[in-house]
Amino acid sequence: MATFAIDLHGGDFGPSVLIPACFQFFRDHPKDQGILVGDLKTFRSLVQYCPVNIDWYDKPPLQGFASKPSRLLRSDSDSSIEACFQLVKSGKADVVVSAEHTGVLLVLTTKYGAVHPYLKRPVLASYIPTMSKPTVMLDLGASYSAKKEQLLAFSAVGVGLIGGSKPSVALLNVGIESFKGPLDIQAAHKALLEWCNIDYRGYIEASDIYSGEQDVIVCDGFTGNSVIKSAEGAMGFAYRTLKARLSNGLVNRVLGLWMRGELHSAMKSLNPEECNGAIVAGSELTVVKSHGCAKERAFRNALERAAKFYAEGAAERVLGQLEWLSSTDEVLS
Amino acid sequence: MATFAIDLHGGDFGPSVLIPACFQFFRDHPKDQGILVGDLKTFRSLVQYCPVNIDWYDKPPLQGFASKPSRLLRSDSDSSIEACFQLVKSGKADVVVSAEHTGVLLVLTTKYGAVHPYLKRPVLASYIPTMSKPTVMLDLGASYSAKKEQLLAFSAVGVGLIGGSKPSVALLNVGIESFKGPLDIQAAHKALLEWCNIDYRGYIEASDIYSGEQDVIVCDGFTGNSVIKSAEGAMGFAYRTLKARLSNGLVNRVLGLWMRGELHSAMKSLNPEECNGAIVAGSELTVVKSHGCAKERAFRNALERAAKFYAEGAAERVLGQLEWLSSTDEVLS
Repeated sequence: MATFAIDLHGGDFGPSVLIPACFQFFRDHPKDQGILVGDLKTFRSLVQYCPVNIDWYDKPPLQGFASKPSRLLRSDSDSSIEACFQLVKSGKADVVVSAEHTGVLLVLTTKYGAVHPYLKRPVLASYIPTMSKPTVMLDLGASYSAKKEQLLAFSAVGVGLIGGSKPSVALLNVGIESFKGPLDIQAAHKALLEWCNIDYRGYIEASDIYSGEQDVIVCDGFTGNSVIKSAEGAMGFAYRTLKARLSNGLVNRVLGLWMRGELHSAMKSLNPEECNGAIVAGSELTVVKSHGCAKERAFRNALERAAKFYAEGAAERVLGQLEWLSSTDEVLS
Repeated sequence: MATFAIDLHGGDFGPSVLIPACFQFFRDHPKDQGILVGDLKTFRSLVQYCPVNIDWYDKPPLQGFASKPSRLLRSDSDSSIEACFQLVKSGKADVVVSAEHTGVLLVLTTKYGAVHPYLKRPVLASYIPTMSKPTVMLDLGASYSAKKEQLLAFSAVGVGLIGGSKPSVALLNVGIESFKGPLDIQAAHKALLEWCNIDYRGYIEASDIYSGEQDVIVCDGFTGNSVIKSAEGAMGFAYRTLKARLSNGLVNRVLGLWMRGELHSAMKSLNPEECNGAIVAGSELTVVKSHGCAKERAFRNALERAAKFYAEGAAERVLGQLEWLSSTDEVLS
């Protein structure tokens, strides 16, 4: 059981898409509570049809901070997304879910949460789809580059998120040979070889991240963001190309109709919409970021992800791993 | 017409795979000449079946330099790959094709070629498959990060490689808004807005690189390498998932047999093997790097790519663009 503070104004589609997603989610989860935060006058007509476990909180959209979110540290905005963080801070809600810009969520997590001092700034992590078990990958966009210490901190966060004993961890690099890659990655590699609470697998190339053989894959945020988006783009490209082929020629058209259902259901497991919901990790808060372009199904998946992270106590596990790392750091460096 | 110096010892498979690829290529290109460089005693039996436009040059494999290729700058190796560069340097060949490690090819290009001073180090560029026209992407692994000046130099190289008038150019970033990304990318963005010989499109996210709407996409080598490999991995994942679906259930199995040909031919256009052959650009030399894991068809495609780059005078076009950039640099910075 958790209370969700949900920002209705983040993302490209806003309340018209996010509200139906929330209605469905809270009908399916009658024991959870939702506080939907947004500009009520723009969707007042919907309020009357809502499930009994949803409350409403009238707040305007955030405006003028996306390009310079750090200004939120100095001045409060009267906005739906900041209200969500205030609800969690005051104990009225347990998790924040929003499709707002990453930068805004990072700054507000820093403002309202206590980011572990070893990490300094929150990190963006997500489960990615693979051939077998889900893999946690981070950072996906909270950093533009990463020093050795950050790569180690990301590793600890990943270990905390995935849970379990001795999870497998790999460092993303441009080759698997030990001499490959930037010095910071080489230094992190040497340190990770000494960690006894993980099954460290060394370097992994981006072509192998979808094999599902790793529990945690660690990289800087610029690379992680680009790698995930590249996979999305490539899969979309593969899907459109195959679809076009299946409309070509009479035999293919007939077979294509038959096969489309199969194709669609096969592609579903690869669909980034299905694994929507990245966690803004590193503080005691549970903050889940949805894709900006998430539609109803994808946003519902982000809500499911938030429920899972909260129920598991993932935020505490992450802080525990960071605490362990900061206490053993001198041994490692 | 060109003479190819081909290193038979680069890559994972060596002469047994590369020689058949060369035989086929030079049968299809009777006006071109090949000098196949390798350890003759290991494949002497094949020499007698070779096309008339192939010569052989007996040299051992490169050993002991992969982890520290910069040592090649100070001491000559008696190796097949260095012999290829010496053949081009002495005018006996026009292009080098090899599946050797990127680092080795970069160092030897610097040693035997005259890399343009504005670029300082060669850059690795390749055509990537897209929904429509081919797109040149760079850097794909010659650099681990890139300052503003490098990103501008990479842009000039890309413009030279693609040729034509006013090609479209985009900078890879984590978002399309002008405030996104590291400062070096933002600075390069501002400078590119002033270039009048290109159609500058601003930032592009990695999810959009396969749309084929850009002629040239520019990024640092760590990101470029990871982005391309991620796309390869994701497409392999999609392909294997679909194939598994088509073997599931009797109706699907029957239809699957029928469809497999279609699927295979659709996937071919997305197959990185089909677009194998990256150019080590920035000097007067034409040096093409094949994937290390290239098999016969892929290596033949790298040879085709080398023939095309050489016939077009791509190396001279690249140097011309870099010269233009270095002469206008003060205006831009």
